[in-house]
Order: sequence, then C-alpha cells, then structure tokens
Amino acid sequence: MSDSTDQNRQIDLEIEELRAFTRPTSRVTSTALEDRLYKIFPVLDHGFVRVIDYMGDDTSIVQAARVSYGKGTKSVRNDEGLIRYLMRHRHSTPFEMCEIKFHIKLPIFVARQWIRHRTANVNEYSARYSMLDREFYIPAPEHLAAQSDINNQGRGDVLRDEEAAEVLDMLKADAVRSYDRYETLLNERQNGRVINEDKQGLARELARMTLPLSAYTQWYWKVDLHNLNHFLSLRMDPHAQYEIRVFAEVMFDIVRDWVPLTAKAFEDYRVNSFDLSGPMLAAVRRMVRGETVDADNSGLSGREWRELQAALGLSD
Amino acid sequence: MSDSTDQNRQIDLEIEELRAFTRPTSRVTSTALEDRLYKIFPVLDHGFVRVIDYMGDDTSIVQAARVSYGKGTKSVRNDEGLIRYLMRHRHSTPFEMCEIKFHIKLPIFVARQWIRHRTANVNEYSARYSMLDREFYIPAPEHLAAQSDINNQGRGDVLRDEEAAEVLDMLKADAVRSYDRYETLLNERQNGRVINEDKQGLARELARMTLPLSAYTQWYWKVDLHNLNHFLSLRMDPHAQYEIRVFAEVMFDIVRDWVPLTAKAFEDYRVNSFDLSGPMLAAVRRMVRGETVDADNSGLSGREWRELQAALGLSD
Amino acid sequence: MSDSTDQNRQIDLEIEELRAFTRPTSRVTSTALEDRLYKIFPVLDHGFVRVIDYMGDDTSIVQAARVSYGKGTKSVRNDEGLIRYLMRHRHSTPFEMCEIKFHIKLPIFVARQWIRHRTANVNEYSARYSMLDREFYIPAPEHLAAQSDINNQGRGDVLRDEEAAEVLDMLKADAVRSYDRYETLLNERQNGRVINEDKQGLARELARMTLPLSAYTQWYWKVDLHNLNHFLSLRMDPHAQYEIRVFAEVMFDIVRDWVPLTAKAFEDYRVNSFDLSGPMLAAVRRMVRGETVDADNSGLSGREWRELQAALGLSD
Amino acid sequence: MSDSTDQNRQIDLEIEELRAFTRPTSRVTSTALEDRLYKIFPVLDHGFVRVIDYMGDDTSIVQAARVSYGKGTKSVRNDEGLIRYLMRHRHSTPFEMCEIKFHIKLPIFVARQWIRHRTANVNEYSARYSMLDREFYIPAPEHLAAQSDINNQGRGDVLRDEEAAEVLDMLKADAVRSYDRYETLLNERQNGRVINEDKQGLARELARMTLPLSAYTQWYWKVDLHNLNHFLSLRMDPHAQYEIRVFAEVMFDIVRDWVPLTAKAFEDYRVNSFDLSGPMLAAVRRMVRGETVDADNSGLSGREWRELQAALGLSD
Repeated sequence: MSDSTDQNRQIDLEIEELRAFTRPTSRVTSTALEDRLYKIFPVLDHGFVRVIDYMGDDTSIVQAARVSYGKGTKSVRNDEGLIRYLMRHRHSTPFEMCEIKFHIKLPIFVARQWIRHRTANVNEYSARYSMLDREFYIPAPEHLAAQSDINNQGRGDVLRDEEAAEVLDMLKADAVRSYDRYETLLNERQNGRVINEDKQGLARELARMTLPLSAYTQWYWKVDLHNLNHFLSLRMDPHAQYEIRVFAEVMFDIVRDWVPLTAKAFEDYRVNSFDLSGPMLAAVRRMVRGETVDADNSGLSGREWRELQAALGLSD
Repeated sequence: MSDSTDQNRQIDLEIEELRAFTRPTSRVTSTALEDRLYKIFPVLDHGFVRVIDYMGDDTSIVQAARVSYGKGTKSVRNDEGLIRYLMRHRHSTPFEMCEIKFHIKLPIFVARQWIRHRTANVNEYSARYSMLDREFYIPAPEHLAAQSDINNQGRGDVLRDEEAAEVLDMLKADAVRSYDRYETLLNERQNGRVINEDKQGLARELARMTLPLSAYTQWYWKVDLHNLNHFLSLRMDPHAQYEIRVFAEVMFDIVRDWVPLTAKAFEDYRVNSFDLSGPMLAAVRRMVRGETVDADNSGLSGREWRELQAALGLSD
Repeated sequence: MSDSTDQNRQIDLEIEELRAFTRPTSRVTSTALEDRLYKIFPVLDHGFVRVIDYMGDDTSIVQAARVSYGKGTKSVRNDEGLIRYLMRHRHSTPFEMCEIKFHIKLPIFVARQWIRHRTANVNEYSARYSMLDREFYIPAPEHLAAQSDINNQGRGDVLRDEEAAEVLDMLKADAVRSYDRYETLLNERQNGRVINEDKQGLARELARMTLPLSAYTQWYWKVDLHNLNHFLSLRMDPHAQYEIRVFAEVMFDIVRDWVPLTAKAFEDYRVNSFDLSGPMLAAVRRMVRGETVDADNSGLSGREWRELQAALGLSD
Repeated sequence: MSDSTDQNRQIDLEIEELRAFTRPTSRVTSTALEDRLYKIFPVLDHGFVRVIDYMGDDTSIVQAARVSYGKGTKSVRNDEGLIRYLMRHRHSTPFEMCEIKFHIKLPIFVARQWIRHRTANVNEYSARYSMLDREFYIPAPEHLAAQSDINNQGRGDVLRDEEAAEVLDMLKADAVRSYDRYETLLNERQNGRVINEDKQGLARELARMTLPLSAYTQWYWKVDLHNLNHFLSLRMDPHAQYEIRVFAEVMFDIVRDWVPLTAKAFEDYRVNSFDLSGPMLAAVRRMVRGETVDADNSGLSGREWRELQAALGLSD
C-alpha cells in the first residue's frame, strides 16, 4: 500500500496518535475489535479496509430486542438463542442498533457498485478538491479471466499465459500513460510542483475525467449492522465480482471478531441458507416422502430444477 | 364507511370528478387498475383502501431491466421469464420503477405498525389541524381472541360467547364515552358547533390525546413496488396481526390486477417460499438421499426441527 | 419517573452495571458525554431521555471532511472554522459520521409525530408482547391551552383556572378508568396476577387499543448527527407542539456537551437563521439602500411582509 | 446523439411505439408534460434527458395537503397560495406525492456525483452484462477552464486558445485510444464481431476498467418531487460543476412544464433565496434601522461579511 500523498500521510499520523493511547469509556466495548481499530487490512494491490469507529456489540442487539419485546423475550434462554431467533425471523431492527465506520481504499469501478447500497453514510475523497494518487488496480494473472460463455455477467476460464501476459502489459502501460496525461493536463505533479510555468493547467474537476475506472479512490463508509449484513450477503455471493468480494470477505472477518454470535447466525441463516420457492418446496416434499422426482415431473423450469439439484447436492 | 365530516365529503366530490372523465395519456396504462382507481375497498368496520394514482406496470419492470442488463437479458425469452428471474435472484431495483399511491383509512394502532416501514411517502390527517371522526374499530366477535399461551405476540382461542359479549360491550361503551369526552374537551362538535359558549375549549393538539388507539385515522401512502412487496410479505404473514393483515390482503388483490406477472412471481418466490438455513439444508440433503433424520440426529435446535417438519409437511 | 414493571427494573439494573465500571478504548471519546451516559433526564411527567451509546465527536466531523476535501481543507485554519463552513454551506455528509443512541420514554401521541422522521433506527416497546405501564401524560395546568384563533395547528391562551381544573379532573379520571379497563380486558394486572380465573382475557394486541394516546411508550432511537440536527431544527421550532419541543430541548442540551462546535454552528446557521425568499431579499436590498419599503410597495404578500417585519425586528 | 448499439435502437423503437398512440386514463394528467414524454433533450455532446413516466401534478400536492391538514387548509384561498405556503414552511411531504422517471445518458464522472443523492431509484446500464458505447465527453473549448486560484473545488479562467487546442487534442486522442484498447481487451467490437479468433478476450467486468471517467453511461432515475427539488437546488447552484448543472437546468425546465406553481415557489423560496445566519440577521437589523455597519463592527467573519455584502448587492 502506498498512501503516497502528504495528505494521506497526515491522516495516518493523526490516526496513529489516536491509536497510541486509550481513554476510559462506559460504552459497550468489543475487546477483539479494539485490537483491530485503525489497522490497515490490505485488499487487492493498493486497496485496504480499516475500522475507524464502532458502536455496540452482540449484547447491544439483545438489549434493544429486550426493550422491544419486554417479557416476550424471557422464554429465549440466552443471548445466542435470541440473536439466532431474530436473524431467522428477519427481525432486523435490533441489528440496526450497532454501527461501524470503515475507511476504505478501492478502485473506482468497485466504488461504483458499492455505492448502490444507499442505506449508509459516505464521505469520499473529492477529485474536484485534490489530486488523485498514482495508483491503479492491476489484477494478478490468476484473476485475468475470459468472459463466461454461460453467464452474461461473469467470468469464465482464466486467460492462457501468453494472452494474460499481453493483457497485463496493456493494463500497466495504460495506467502509467493515463496518469502521466492527468499530470500534463493539470500541469502539476503529485508533490504539488507545477510542470510548465507558462501554462495554466486544466481544472482538477475536468482533468480527472481522463483517468480510468481502475484508479483508486477512498472513502469513509459508515453503516449499521443490519445493512452491513445485507451488503455482505450480496457481495460475498459467488456471483459478485471478485474485486468487490475480496473487500466483503475482509469486512466479514472483522464482523466475526466484533459480533461473533451475530456473525454465526448470519452464516447459518443467510450465507449458507437456500430459499426454496413454492414450487421447489412442493418438489422437496415429494422427495422426502420417497417419491421419484425428476426434471419432467418436478413442475419446475429447467433452470430452477438445476438450481434445486445443485442445492441438494444431487447434481452429477 | 362513514366519511362523516364535510372535509371528507369534499374530498370525495373532488375525487368523483376526477373519476368521471378520462384523459388521453402516452404513459404506460394498466386497464385493470384503471377500473379500480379511486374506488373504495372496505377493510374492517370503518377502514378502506383506495388507489389514487399509479406509475408503470409489468412492462415497466422489463424495460428497466433491459436498460440495466442490455444484451444480457436477451437470453431470457419473454417478459414473464425475466420478471421471475429478477424476483428469484432478488434483483430489486427494476421493481422500484413502479409506484402506487393509496388512500387508506385505518385504526391508529394499525397505523403505528404500518409506519415502521420507512421507505414510503406519507401524508397523514392531522389531529392538530382538524377534528377526528367519531369512528372506532370494534372487532367482530369471531376476532376477539385470548392471548396465545405459546406465542408471546399472538392470539389463541376465540373468546367464549359470554366473555366475548362482555368485551364487546366494554369496547363499544368506551368508544362512545371517549368520543363524548373528546367533544367536551374541545367544547365543539364534529359539525363545528360550539357546545358551551362560556368555555374556551382545549386545543385540538391536546384534546386528541384522550382518544383511544382504536380511533381511525387516514393517510395517503405512496410506495414503490419493491418496497410494497416487502411490506406485503411481512404483513400477509400468518404471524402478522389480523387487523393489518386484512389491509395487506386487499392491497395484494389490487397488485394482482396491476402487475399480474410480478404478483405471481412474488407468490412463488416470497409468499410460498421457505428459507432453509444452512443446518436445515444439510438435514434435507440427508433426507433426500434416503437417510433417516430425526430431531436428535438432525443437528437442529428443537424449534428449528419443528419448523422444518412443518414446512416439509411431516408434522403429525 | 416510575419504571414500574419488573422488566424495566431489570433493564435499569443491567444499565447500572454497565455504568459502574469503565473499559479502555482507542475510539474517539467525549468526556462530557461520558458523564451523561445512561443517566435519566426527565421530560414531562413520566417521560425521559437517556443516552445509551454514541460514536464520534467534533473531531470526527473534521476528520471525515479532510478525507473528502483533502488539501482543499487546508485553507480553513482550524476545526471550528471548518465545521462552521460545512454547516453554512450545507455539506451534510461529514455530520453523518457521528451517531448517537437514545432511550426515550414518551407519550404515544408524541411518538406518532416523532416517527415521521424516517432516517433513524428504532426499537419500540411492543404492546403485543408485553403489557404497558400505568402511566399517562397529564399536562401541568400552565400547559392547558385553548385552540389558537389565528393558527390552525397551535395553542392560544391558557385555560382559565376553573376550566383548567375541570379539564385536569377529566384527563386524570379518564386515564385511571382506561387503565382499569385495560387490566379488565386482559384479565391481568401489571404484576402478572390474573384477575378472574374463570376468564380467558383478551389478547394483548387487542386490549391495548382501548388505551388513550396519552399512554407512555418507550424506544431506543439511534440517529446520525446530521439527521438529529434536522429533527431538532423542526422540533425546537416555536411552532412545534410543546410536548415534543421539550424532548428536543433536552436532547439539544446533550448535543451541546457532545459536539460543542457543531452545536454552536447549528444555532447560528439553523436555529437563529432566517431564510429570505427571493422577493424578501429584493425588499431588504432596497431597505439597506435607504428606500422606504412598506407593505404596499414591497412586492410581498401580506403574510410574507409580516414575517419579514417580525424577522427584522420592525413589528410594532 | 448516437445511440449506436442495437440494444439502444431497440429500446428507441419500443419507446416510439409507446409514444405513437395514447390510452385513456382517469389519473391526473399534465398536458404539457405529455408533450415532452419520451422525447430526447440533448445535454453536453452525447448525453440526454428524457421523461419516461410521471405521477401527479400541482393539484396532487394540494390534494395530499388537504388530507393532512383538513379544515386547516381552508384559510388558504387557492392552490397557488397553499403550494407557496408549503414550500416556504418546508412542509415537504405533500411534494413527495408526485413522482417522475427519467432516462438519462451522462458521463461517468457526472454519474458519480449524481448517485450521491440516495433517495431515488436507479437502474443503470451494466458494463458487466453489456459493452459500453464508443462515446466520451469532450468539453467545448469555452468550457475548458483552469483551476480556480481562490476556490479549491472550482474553475477559474478559460484556457487560452493554444493551450485549449492542445488539451482538446489530448482528450480526443485519449478517448479514441482507450476505446480501441477496450475492444482489444474484450477481443470484440461494438457490433459483436470477434477481432481475433485465437484469443479468448478479457471478461467485460474487467475490460471496462480501462475506460476513462469521461465515458458515457445511462440509467433510469426515478425520484419524488421533493427530492428532485433538493437535487436541483444543489446542482443548479453556481458552485456545482458545469457538467452536472446543465443536466439540472434541462430537468428544471421540464419541472416548470409539469408543476408550474411548484416550480415558481421553488424559485422564489429556494433558488433565489438567501439564508441569513443569526449573526447576519443581527447585522441586517442594524442596517435597516439606519446604523452604519462595516466589516469590523458587523460581528461577522471576513468570509461571512463578504457573502452578506454580495447578497445585499453592496459589493463593489
């Protein structure tokens, strides 16, 4: 990771200061998350995830649920049981009582997918105010895949060695070239030095548009635990693009430390769950009664039948 | 239904005027919904649902999806297939492209549950500005149920005849009495006549607080189809309180006329679906392979085992 | 305050435990707010506000703004200047980086206004799961006002002594009576004791509807600082109903301790500001040039002219 | 405008069909907006705005307000007066009762600013599913401005002829070059033809990242009138970047046809209004009483004093 600008270095210094000493608090505190606070967890070639702040932990969810349900929660014997009950029955509001704030560095094309999740707070680095860093996402060779033949939005086979090498060369050359061009247009270098005293230089808000979508941006992203789980369930999915999935996986690892009971319930009831449609459920009922159900007599479309087979571990 | 105040009568007249003649439009139009427009569909004893306006229909969802996925949608042969695909894979944004506006009259305790759905637009009748009507929800005898012994938030057996009669008498007497008291505090009757010229009367914003939660209020409620479906899936659920469920059922009936393909997909993939947790899925995989799975060796908690048995139609 | 039920007592105990000792944290900490944490600040006769948790302080806003604007913030010399700049120019996202969680006890008619603010997280005590407390809002005599003659939504003169006494008697008698009736319908007392062994008792979700809107409810309410400020600016306004204004005022007092720089900027640029419309601005321009501007030649409607006169301190 | 792909041509055909004939509706209809429906209003060099659908008009706002305020709205004599009252006092919910759906084609760097407005529905063209068009934003020479010396986020003087010509040449060459590279990486042309049969081609979701932020994307964007006004007030502001401002101006022109009373109130109370801070108001009060107020005795910071002088037309 190369937080190369002065600006970033200054932010780092401030944050290190914050980390250097602790203060007493009466707030709910997660010891495991305190250990992770402010630390940089690298993602992709120049990106990262770090936790800036958080509110609450597993017990905050239980506390909020007890306010809601009063005596109604007495029958659930313990915190874990209650959290699992809430997750299973999609009682989402208690999970909204926890909040986490991340500092994320990510390629712009990933940021464009990410921002579609509207229920979060965002402060993004502005390329109208400041110059972007000389950093671009260049995939590792094993992630250079061809277009999938069967999935319109997915990747197929990894590119063969020679083609992969060519593609990498192109991506690298383009990144260098377009950052050079960005500096030329701005008439300025990252260190603030003007290139040509006789030129005015193009305004930052215009010059940035020559940069490719592989350029890195960064933001503070603050979200409650319910909406974070929703984000993770979509972005940890095998159909999510690899470059956002790796961010989601690092974040889920953090969530596991922060709210271990919730993270386990989330895995059981969201990540590893399978939603049987009405017609699928009818087919499974017949199967467990011992009937022979096949594609033709299942009442399912070909696509749904294959999805069900795969979920039940019955595919060839 | 007794829209008893002048204000309501005036609104009705305005709406009847709107309904009386039609205008040409180039917008997408749902013939079946046009027939329902502005009509009152009664719910409970004094409540109602009516559609005031709408935007889009099933084809609008397809159109929006085609903008998003471009050639990627070519492989889906027809509109129905695409809508079912979107619903199954929780691609929710195309459904947000349809919008509907309802006029709803409902008891305040129902309104309090309803408003928890935050992603909607609301204009509620204000009891600070105007006097509320003399209308209260009195359940039909067959809906007067005792507290459930097993479900902390639910109803159990219907009250026995004699107790039911007593309860009804109490509810009716209380409603009359508290509305009388409301008029006395305001020193005003619904027709605007002052009761006692020598008194000032309490401000409306204070007098209203003596009214019970069974009093009726009304609002305009505007929502997109995705969020309406989410509302319906929660409120048509057997665990939802009867008094809000009947509103949801009337609204779903309207949705069926408006966007029949979406309504069918919603039924198959939301209403009649069953979400297998990871551990449940593991148990079902064993069942369909012919293993004998019981409560003890299922790896499920007692509660989850019973839920699975019920879903698979294996309960006694 | 009378947190009379066992449930509430248990919550109190848990919270006292949390308060009893402190833990070390590397998070941003507000010393002044730590002192207020978990403490009950009474509002109205039985209501309260207490802070359960918080995230960030004034420096978190500055930190987020610096991530956004990079070097662009260098010209603003200090934190206070930057916060005032952000508030003045309605750069709202940095304020969203702070979060606070309140526990609020409030009358239901106040809760109904409050919940209209949709950008917040809420867990409300559920009267489907548990019995409500025997607590009702009875205004102090000096807050028993008549309907305003000039303002359709407001209060006018305070009721004269005799009428005020009568009104208070009625409100008190009704509160007692309706809670007695609630117990009768439930066939249960607050302590859980059944009243009549031969009766079934009405389900909680139905019995509650006989309670008046003056009954107290409670909730956890979590919100970011930007949306809290928006809530406060509307609810601290002199046109807001007194019974919600007093909650807003107590909360603003807490905000002043938590984020003093933001609170001061909020007062200068929101609470004490005045929005000149285009036509008003044209009139003021003429005034400061020395022209005599009156109602007739101002180009303003009568209502706007009076509002402008009042704002400029020129009313009689 | 060059909707060059087959996909776009097909969408156009479908839309022309919709436009070709009208259907009768009982819904509120805006004749002026019907004339604009589906038509393309060009923005920048390849962008556009077109209205796909709408719900409601000025009368819908009045209707919703009357449901809320009941008799309380009687004192406002007419629709225009009521709409102006609602706008002035920031009663925003009635404006949420109107909805509009746009189809927008815009450069990606503009889309990135736009999407920060979270309260809207979006379906964006996906470059994971489909290939983007060969279209890039190249500013007209008169919009090629240097970085402002005084405003960190703004533009200063227009570039001198020679430098402008150089910059344009660079931007054009880069656009052509990077689209060529996009095709090479994909191993495919816009017409679907494969370039080199021996190569696999990089997956679309990866190849897109070489495209610059000046590339065009498109989306359906649906929003209610209150949130549209908020968007317009921020994006029509002189401090907004030119390239998004021109979209906002075209959209406001459409709003003027759709809801003329609301558009006029919006201009008077938002666009042309000026928010006096508490300290500014104090200074103006002294001015209109005839006192001589200058920078030193105004009690304002230098920056605020200059803003006030400018607003009052007192700048030199």
